Amino acid sequence: MQKCGKFIVLEGLEGAGKTTAREAVLKALQANGIDQVEFTREPGGTPLAEKLRQLIKFGDGKEVISDKAELLMLYAARIQLVENVIRPALTCGKWVLGDRHDMSSQAYQGGGRQIDRTLLATLRDTVLGDFKPDLTLYLDIDPELGLSRARSRGELDRIEQLQLDFFQRTRQRYLELVAADPNAILIDAAQSIEQVSAAVQSAVSAWLAKQER
Amino acid sequence: MQKCGKFIVLEGLEGAGKTTAREAVLKALQANGIDQVEFTREPGGTPLAEKLRQLIKFGDGKEVISDKAELLMLYAARIQLVENVIRPALTCGKWVLGDRHDMSSQAYQGGGRQIDRTLLATLRDTVLGDFKPDLTLYLDIDPELGLSRARSRGELDRIEQLQLDFFQRTRQRYLELVAADPNAILIDAAQSIEQVSAAVQSAVSAWLAKQER
Repeated sequence: MQKCGKFIVLEGLEGAGKTTAREAVLKALQANGIDQVEFTREPGGTPLAEKLRQLIKFGDGKEVISDKAELLMLYAARIQLVENVIRPALTCGKWVLGDRHDMSSQAYQGGGRQIDRTLLATLRDTVLGDFKPDLTLYLDIDPELGLSRARSRGELDRIEQLQLDFFQRTRQRYLELVAADPNAILIDAAQSIEQVSAAVQSAVSAWLAKQER
Repeated sequence: MQKCGKFIVLEGLEGAGKTTAREAVLKALQANGIDQVEFTREPGGTPLAEKLRQLIKFGDGKEVISDKAELLMLYAARIQLVENVIRPALTCGKWVLGDRHDMSSQAYQGGGRQIDRTLLATLRDTVLGDFKPDLTLYLDIDPELGLSRARSRGELDRIEQLQLDFFQRTRQRYLELVAADPNAILIDAAQSIEQVSAAVQSAVSAWLAKQER
């Protein structure tokens, strides 16, 4: 039993296969005796944060949402989730498996929306301080393939309707962030579901083995 | 005709008389031939910002709102209003009269909630850059008197239900901010409605006279 849980995050573009990867992470954790795992998704995960998620994803249909307003709502939802859900779970020794966290803002807002990176870094440090995931699994996929998968799932939201070059910039930024983050692992998500699952399980198991050393 | 409008803001605790003061500002502006005036209120003033206002003022009844989440929602609503309403109006030569703006966050969140002031200043600079009011009228009132006036108007929201010492810290911070701001004027709001109106009108007229020099 861990006294204190760990925070693992799944990152990647639409259609990268985060839902499949989630099951794979769970299996790897269970195989190592870790079964107290709480799921979160961002933006969202608390009643207030879910309301913000709706505003962020669908707007209100009447006005253009300013890039900065979007960014601030994302951080409002994030800190609400961190303070009310993630931190308390970790303190109780649970593990938390997050569908997106701060790297999404750095990639989508910094890469896709081209918001100034110093501004983004300042906001992250100001709001989150030194809180960060113990492990980030980034599911890398070409946006054309990812979006075609996402489209086959049904209606697209405000973000998913953006142009391809938005997602190409986002992927580029993800790649830079993952390369610079010692706690991030890149998974090739263009592979088959089975191959992605196997790669995720093996990455998590290897990481767990290092943690226990 | 001004080529470019000015942004005048009313600040003060609950029950300070901002609605009364608004009429007095309008009269002073009209007496000086300025009748293209747009009103704003914060948080709010756009469809998205009004939805954020509801979340900020009443929460969702199910969870404690983190101080930082509240702060970020306030800034999300503010930048949405600045970019979609205030800046376009000023550019078209209209004047804007705001019921609250950034000084409210500095006073309520910095004073009342005791959020770190460096953090607040960083957030303001990051989000708003050098956008600021041309004139701020701060209606100063003892919180006991202000709250008793506000209570007589009906139900209190989440903010107005806070303890008296919260509002005393907020007032203290307001006084410091106004003392340090060359574009802010203190109005004694403990006076009668007539006296407050007269003081506001005379302050605005004197300020206008200086602008035209």
